[in-house]
Amino acid sequence: MTKSRLEAFSDGVLAIAITIMVLELRPPEDGYTLKSLLELLPTFLSYVLSFIYVGIYWNNHHHMFHLADKINGAVLWKNLNLLFWLSLFPFTTAWMDKNYTQPLPVAVYGFVLAMAAVAYLILQKELIKAGGPNCKLAQAVGTDSKGKISGVLYLAGISASFIATWISITLYTIVALIWFIPDKRIEKFYADDNEI
Amino acid sequence: MTKSRLEAFSDGVLAIAITIMVLELRPPEDGYTLKSLLELLPTFLSYVLSFIYVGIYWNNHHHMFHLADKINGAVLWKNLNLLFWLSLFPFTTAWMDKNYTQPLPVAVYGFVLAMAAVAYLILQKELIKAGGPNCKLAQAVGTDSKGKISGVLYLAGISASFIATWISITLYTIVALIWFIPDKRIEKFYADDNEI
Amino acid sequence: MTKSRLEAFSDGVLAIAITIMVLELRPPEDGYTLKSLLELLPTFLSYVLSFIYVGIYWNNHHHMFHLADKINGAVLWKNLNLLFWLSLFPFTTAWMDKNYTQPLPVAVYGFVLAMAAVAYLILQKELIKAGGPNCKLAQAVGTDSKGKISGVLYLAGISASFIATWISITLYTIVALIWFIPDKRIEKFYADDNEI
Amino acid sequence: MTKSRLEAFSDGVLAIAITIMVLELRPPEDGYTLKSLLELLPTFLSYVLSFIYVGIYWNNHHHMFHLADKINGAVLWKNLNLLFWLSLFPFTTAWMDKNYTQPLPVAVYGFVLAMAAVAYLILQKELIKAGGPNCKLAQAVGTDSKGKISGVLYLAGISASFIATWISITLYTIVALIWFIPDKRIEKFYADDNEI
Repeated sequence: MTKSRLEAFSDGVLAIAITIMVLELRPPEDGYTLKSLLELLPTFLSYVLSFIYVGIYWNNHHHMFHLADKINGAVLWKNLNLLFWLSLFPFTTAWMDKNYTQPLPVAVYGFVLAMAAVAYLILQKELIKAGGPNCKLAQAVGTDSKGKISGVLYLAGISASFIATWISITLYTIVALIWFIPDKRIEKFYADDNEI
Repeated sequence: MTKSRLEAFSDGVLAIAITIMVLELRPPEDGYTLKSLLELLPTFLSYVLSFIYVGIYWNNHHHMFHLADKINGAVLWKNLNLLFWLSLFPFTTAWMDKNYTQPLPVAVYGFVLAMAAVAYLILQKELIKAGGPNCKLAQAVGTDSKGKISGVLYLAGISASFIATWISITLYTIVALIWFIPDKRIEKFYADDNEI
Repeated sequence: MTKSRLEAFSDGVLAIAITIMVLELRPPEDGYTLKSLLELLPTFLSYVLSFIYVGIYWNNHHHMFHLADKINGAVLWKNLNLLFWLSLFPFTTAWMDKNYTQPLPVAVYGFVLAMAAVAYLILQKELIKAGGPNCKLAQAVGTDSKGKISGVLYLAGISASFIATWISITLYTIVALIWFIPDKRIEKFYADDNEI
Repeated sequence: MTKSRLEAFSDGVLAIAITIMVLELRPPEDGYTLKSLLELLPTFLSYVLSFIYVGIYWNNHHHMFHLADKINGAVLWKNLNLLFWLSLFPFTTAWMDKNYTQPLPVAVYGFVLAMAAVAYLILQKELIKAGGPNCKLAQAVGTDSKGKISGVLYLAGISASFIATWISITLYTIVALIWFIPDKRIEKFYADDNEI
């Protein structure tokens, strides 16, 4: 029961993060031509990338709490910490799409992505601590090589922004693709449960 | 339990899509006359059309998941794909209502409507695949003539925008009316269940 | 189960209606004085009135669906109709607070309040029709004298706006107060249930 | 069942309050430099403080309703009263971050914080009244020394804003820290329940 309330509140914040991002996608002021539409392309592509990131977090959050048995006061706060970093996505997305050739906005975008990933890991650790070392979540997570690769790619992306921003954006996109592909370990657990 | 979380998140995004659309309906800057109110008519009518579309998607989504027995990781992503296209409604609505006599904004409005319809069909297919060929949803959907007619009308509407935009808008409205009328097949299933 | 999804979606739209209204309450551009704060008073008071109205609808919606036994496809659409009119509150509130001495914005504010009330009655009727003449909701509603008095006051308020807008605003406030006071009939039903 | 709807609606309003606050955090208009980013620091810090406050209210609201056994019509309205004051956070946050050296905006920020705290106590009292003097919530709340200290600090903060605003902001931050630290009494109750 209480788990469902934490999930509902998180869903609310995530749904709203998507909203604020799409608010950036304003119709061209006086234009109705193909040219004016194409000028929105960087904004549109930034929106797509951030939408996929929020989608990944929503899916993983969903999976993680499905497997979690127990929650406590520390979990609530560590979940709020994750939501805090996710709530900054609209800001960093808007800043980057207007300045996608400038190092700082692209680095800050990557920094917030990385902080959200760290916040996610902290939350996961707290859930495993609450559930005990033999809980379903602990077994499903295992060695977490995806998380380690992501960490390296984020660092590389943030650094690369001071050389060429397209490298950074490519690296951020690769991290999204890595997570987009469903996680065999967790899918296996679902198969055992025979329902998601 | 998990189905309900997917529904809750979708409801959040849909409720927010409505919000952003109504945000376009700004009170006239310095006006308090009937004339200044009537100038908002295109914006108001676009809002009504898009509200009905979101309402249709909410109702059908509701019905579809009511009949769905099983969900999995692929369903989550295909649902997010539908939400992505629905999240673009506020953008295309705002662009069309300011340029309702211009081909491109009206064609783009129809294109996003059509893509949402395609995303809905993809989601439906995945749910039927997850539930098996004899699941309740598979039986309720049947030949899906409504879906086929809508596809033709969307294509006609998008093409017509380059001739006369009022034809396109009429065709989009007709699709809305087709779906507005309750679906006998699905209502029948509810009647059998004796509850919605 | 399905009733809860309808409630959740309605809650989403209502929560968002409150949001958009409070968005109107912008901090004074360059001011930090008492004078600049007091200039926001009409906006603040309009917000308070509309907040109370949304609160009343939320409470009554809550009570009504608590007593409703059955819902069907027609209920979904009639609920969406109510949400449509409630979604216009932010627009009419924003227009009125900028023009609270002008007849049209004040009349339109009252018109949308009245349409929401009508939509509520239509929804209530559909729920009673679905539940049958002896359902709990039918007994709780009874003769509905509150509804009838509100109708008269709304009509008087809309008409009065063309004489003096403060009369209209007073009448709208009186309707809010009438509904604010808890409904003995429905409270009685709760008492019988011994839980809300 | 009904308790969960009240919680869901409250979550919606809280999630949206966070949204509107983060909307204030606009990317710098024409800047992509560190200087332009640092200019956002007061806005960012105000956002962090208000985010923590909303997080505290969400957590405490969560805990309080977890322990509450019965709710009634009066609880619904007293909950709406709390939501009303919380819905003003985005306004007071936006006003303060633009004028953090001016007494009035800083005093008003503290006043709304204090009113939310009062609204919370009123709601808590109503829940205890509904549950009876021996209900779990009544036992968990006890003498409520935290509440009393907060009241004193809010009053001191509001008064101090007319001397030096940094004192006020420090005091508001101290109140947040007091509540941030988990409440032993309530955690104890959870431990007894062996689940949150």
